[in-house]
Amino acid sequence: MANAIRFLSADAVENAGSGHPGLPLGAADIATVLFTRFMRFDPTMPEWPNRDRFVFSAGHGSMLLYSLLHLLGYKDIGIEEIRSFRQLGSKAAGHPEYGHAAGIETTTGPLGQGIANAVGMAIAERHLAARFGDELVDHRTYVFVGDGCLMEGISQEAISLAGQLKLSKLTMLWDDNGITIDGAVSLADATDQLARFQASGWDTFSCDGHDQDEIAAALEAANASDKPSLVDCRTTIGFGASGKAGTAKAHGSPLGEDEIKQMRETLDWPHEPFEVPANITDQWRIAGLRSAAARRKWEERHAALDAEQRGEFDRLHRGDLPSGLQQRIERAKRNANEMRPAVATRKASEMALEVINEIVPETLGGSADLTGSNNTLTEGLGVLSAENHDGRYIHYGIREHAMAGIMNGLALHGGVIPYGGTFLAFSDYARGAIRLSALMGLRVVYVLTHDSIGLGEDGPTHQPVEHLAALRAIPNLAVMRPADIVETLECWHLALESEDRPTVLALSRQAVPALRTDEHDENKSSRGAYELVSAHGEAKVTLFATGTEVEIAVAAQKSLEQDGYPTRVVSVPCFELFEAQTETYRAAFLDDPSLKVAIEAGVRQGWDALIGRHGIFVGMNGFGASGKAGELYTHFGITADEVVRQVRERMDPNPKDSEETEE
Amino acid sequence: MANAIRFLSADAVENAGSGHPGLPLGAADIATVLFTRFMRFDPTMPEWPNRDRFVFSAGHGSMLLYSLLHLLGYKDIGIEEIRSFRQLGSKAAGHPEYGHAAGIETTTGPLGQGIANAVGMAIAERHLAARFGDELVDHRTYVFVGDGCLMEGISQEAISLAGQLKLSKLTMLWDDNGITIDGAVSLADATDQLARFQASGWDTFSCDGHDQDEIAAALEAANASDKPSLVDCRTTIGFGASGKAGTAKAHGSPLGEDEIKQMRETLDWPHEPFEVPANITDQWRIAGLRSAAARRKWEERHAALDAEQRGEFDRLHRGDLPSGLQQRIERAKRNANEMRPAVATRKASEMALEVINEIVPETLGGSADLTGSNNTLTEGLGVLSAENHDGRYIHYGIREHAMAGIMNGLALHGGVIPYGGTFLAFSDYARGAIRLSALMGLRVVYVLTHDSIGLGEDGPTHQPVEHLAALRAIPNLAVMRPADIVETLECWHLALESEDRPTVLALSRQAVPALRTDEHDENKSSRGAYELVSAHGEAKVTLFATGTEVEIAVAAQKSLEQDGYPTRVVSVPCFELFEAQTETYRAAFLDDPSLKVAIEAGVRQGWDALIGRHGIFVGMNGFGASGKAGELYTHFGITADEVVRQVRERMDPNPKDSEETEE
Repeated sequence: MANAIRFLSADAVENAGSGHPGLPLGAADIATVLFTRFMRFDPTMPEWPNRDRFVFSAGHGSMLLYSLLHLLGYKDIGIEEIRSFRQLGSKAAGHPEYGHAAGIETTTGPLGQGIANAVGMAIAERHLAARFGDELVDHRTYVFVGDGCLMEGISQEAISLAGQLKLSKLTMLWDDNGITIDGAVSLADATDQLARFQASGWDTFSCDGHDQDEIAAALEAANASDKPSLVDCRTTIGFGASGKAGTAKAHGSPLGEDEIKQMRETLDWPHEPFEVPANITDQWRIAGLRSAAARRKWEERHAALDAEQRGEFDRLHRGDLPSGLQQRIERAKRNANEMRPAVATRKASEMALEVINEIVPETLGGSADLTGSNNTLTEGLGVLSAENHDGRYIHYGIREHAMAGIMNGLALHGGVIPYGGTFLAFSDYARGAIRLSALMGLRVVYVLTHDSIGLGEDGPTHQPVEHLAALRAIPNLAVMRPADIVETLECWHLALESEDRPTVLALSRQAVPALRTDEHDENKSSRGAYELVSAHGEAKVTLFATGTEVEIAVAAQKSLEQDGYPTRVVSVPCFELFEAQTETYRAAFLDDPSLKVAIEAGVRQGWDALIGRHGIFVGMNGFGASGKAGELYTHFGITADEVVRQVRERMDPNPKDSEETEE
Repeated sequence: MANAIRFLSADAVENAGSGHPGLPLGAADIATVLFTRFMRFDPTMPEWPNRDRFVFSAGHGSMLLYSLLHLLGYKDIGIEEIRSFRQLGSKAAGHPEYGHAAGIETTTGPLGQGIANAVGMAIAERHLAARFGDELVDHRTYVFVGDGCLMEGISQEAISLAGQLKLSKLTMLWDDNGITIDGAVSLADATDQLARFQASGWDTFSCDGHDQDEIAAALEAANASDKPSLVDCRTTIGFGASGKAGTAKAHGSPLGEDEIKQMRETLDWPHEPFEVPANITDQWRIAGLRSAAARRKWEERHAALDAEQRGEFDRLHRGDLPSGLQQRIERAKRNANEMRPAVATRKASEMALEVINEIVPETLGGSADLTGSNNTLTEGLGVLSAENHDGRYIHYGIREHAMAGIMNGLALHGGVIPYGGTFLAFSDYARGAIRLSALMGLRVVYVLTHDSIGLGEDGPTHQPVEHLAALRAIPNLAVMRPADIVETLECWHLALESEDRPTVLALSRQAVPALRTDEHDENKSSRGAYELVSAHGEAKVTLFATGTEVEIAVAAQKSLEQDGYPTRVVSVPCFELFEAQTETYRAAFLDDPSLKVAIEAGVRQGWDALIGRHGIFVGMNGFGASGKAGELYTHFGITADEVVRQVRERMDPNPKDSEETEE
């Protein structure tokens, strides 16, 4: 049965002319044991909520996964997909892509990410079990990793949190082949991995990765542990391809015709490429149906739930929001309009979360050790810990990258909506995983506070300058920077409704006044940009601004109007949503003859699309500095006075002055 | 003596109204022992190349460092700087900023970075010792870390490489106070750190961090080890401030008047704020001069070197490039003009490195396990290993983040010019450290290959789309994307000459033809953008392009000229350098009436500054896909035909068509 994986993989890579045969050949025995004796799943119902999760962190060995899915009878991966491996349009892409085919639990390729995803899934499992009972939620999470996954820093962040939370239903299978792209692992690493995992609160087990009974015994022991467990499977990369086995040559390119021919003899596999004999196919199909009975029993238990519980369980797994949320948000907006609180948008976010966390029980919050700064913990959530998986708040520790990767895993598992906080500047640490939230289209909410030089004295290491631009550059990521409490409520609502796109909320440390004081229930932030203050008469000047700088725009608008320049203020909470508006809507802001000005305490990149190369940009053109927030704004010239000065200079009829302003 | 640190720190934080008193109070004893009994340095000559390095990774406790520098007699940190701690313009910024004052060896604040910096410094020390002998280069590197540093993933990447390389002159002091911002470390972490470090090849030692003799004994033992060593110093955060000591309350805000008053009594320190009694000041100043004799002896040894060796040592430490480099680059460009090789720019980069590595002996290359893909290893460099510190190539392992942080440390140490490779997409993993290269203005060269969908079948996880934009957004980072071998040579030359700015070289997997076939020695890439192909007559169309897409622009230009549209091609190897040109130079490309088109296999963000909102952009507007490079270019419409089609449509006099093109 393992050889079926080996030859499907080797032949597919050969046929594609590129790919990674070494891993599937080396790990075929492990995969066979896992999927035929341990994993619980049902290929005819791949979305069964209580299935065991298999996270293939070493994504380059994707043919292992495709071979398994094909052999086990997952319909999405027919033989034609294997034959078109790595070709444009194939579900069998170079690396496993979430959404391409049922059975691919997550997108992998960037190493180490799968470990954090698996930790997230294992947390979701325990959390939902605490809510709905072990009868309904009781599955394991397996994560398959290579040496590269273990060298990446995110692995340490993820495993140490898994140890802390005692995620005993998480099992890691380490394809310990001693080879990376550059050669032997020993060129770059001498870590005693078992000792390292033990130090992080894991149980560890070892086996010969080509002895199926040893593998099974190790997995039995691992699954019996009350800690997360690592199974060190010692393997030979490219097993069977005797000319290249055990070397880096087997890793990342086709074996070649001769080598495969030799391998067919060595492993006694006389079949044509892509041909699997019927008896072996049958064995795999039977293995695929092993858990069908368990699945049906689970459905009986599910059906026996009382209507309310079942309805709630199903709602959570469909990802629908509870009814009533919209009304609660609108009510909060109306309250804000009455009270007009001058609060930091991070505080406004906390006020939004107080509303949301009460009515949306599936939110699972957290922070990378900045709880009091990110304002992410609301009353009554309870802390999720080894002893209390029911808690709805995770102390992620100082682990931004793993936090993001774990949130991806939580969202992938389903049944929860994760949000997590850190400082906007430290989104850099998490960027590898944020990109995957966007690529997979997951509902993950990043609460990124301290969003500009306005954080003050902590200085340039902590002051984001380029981060808004850098995050806006990521496709399918909604970057929102609300200006006040009403916009913050609107942006949170949009984030929750955004089922197939992650959201960044960029929030301030410093207080802002209430600026949206109209009494419409409409979610104006959903347009991405909208007119907040109108000009008296036809606008000669348009001031675009986001977040804390909208206040500056509003002040500048008043001065300019007094000076006789009709000026409007356009609040731009989200570039991405603005881009999605009709060209007519956009042109009304962009193509009218008014002078265009943008105000944002970040770099200019991206703003030229709104204001043009000759528009005025009031913002940052380098790193920040340590000092009081107000002094920094003055120092860097991000003030209403500066806006007014520059506009006046440009509106002056003297063309020479206007030229100088250009510089 | 330790109490002098405590009160300077507590009073400075109090005076600033913000800051982190807990760490300096807790770690004052450790710092006192280290700086008065172990560290070798000379405040009167802070740039002494053979000084011990002190890396303060837990940068938020910056007052510890400023107090030390002040007490030891470093001139840059006078009492007025301490009094103006965290104020705009003070050298005593919220976090230690490299370049603000002598004695600050690196910028810290983003946690964990200092560990990688220290590993880099320790590597540079052993490497230079191998070149110049232990008489000239023989110092230790100490790195001070907190719990947060140890939780960050970059710490695991860095310590495992340090263990691999047996950097025995590296000592880590862990301020083990059991407290983070959210509360007890035990909320989020249960790692047995000593076991973890041992697993990574470190020796570990422990001491009571408030018992100076125990600290000294542990440091003695650590320094005697033949491995890198960790000293676990158990401390009480906020030691002395009895109302807040041992709790998160001591971490990140002023203690308050009452608490400080109490502390003055508890620690028997009856002096006014910022006042240190003369006898204690004297003791600190004497400690500061402890190594002056050793420094003078070192200078004698330095003076006794033969002229050539001394000249070379001094040149390396000044950071001057060897004479003759320019001529060699120009010769290589002329050769390229003759041979006109059609090679991938990653291959062109290897050819450039063959020239450079021969004549610039201070380059220290490496790759995060993608040596054969990044083309970073040239013949004869030798691999730097535990047994051979003389080697000039580092197998960094699958550790992008640590690689970048280590390169920062190498550059900070001086005497070497680091470059390191990974895929452009994985710059995300390293971004936290890349930003610090830029903030500190370090000569670090990032060799980022596989720079677009052109990498083909590995698919969207590996295909950078937003990365050029995201890197261009970082201030003070030169992002270069050369179009052919001549531009690659020019960009490498610029990168080496860029003493105060890091460089990203974005390089292709796929081959490109030689496009720059003029025979001028001028480095045209230094203008950032220049006319590669002129229009016949006044240009009606300007095609901007970078890297592999310049070939497409050149092909489109030919077609458009044939169609009667005079068209020029502007190659844009570097936005940042183009922005630095005079407005006149820029306007000649941007403000003429020609139709503007940009071609880049990435997102549009940033290009509007060149082509305007109504310019034509031929590039990506989402993630890539798995498939053959050529098919992907066609699939995503990044072809000469598509450029020609869109230009024709726009040039068509029918305004309705032109409107539609807009969408």
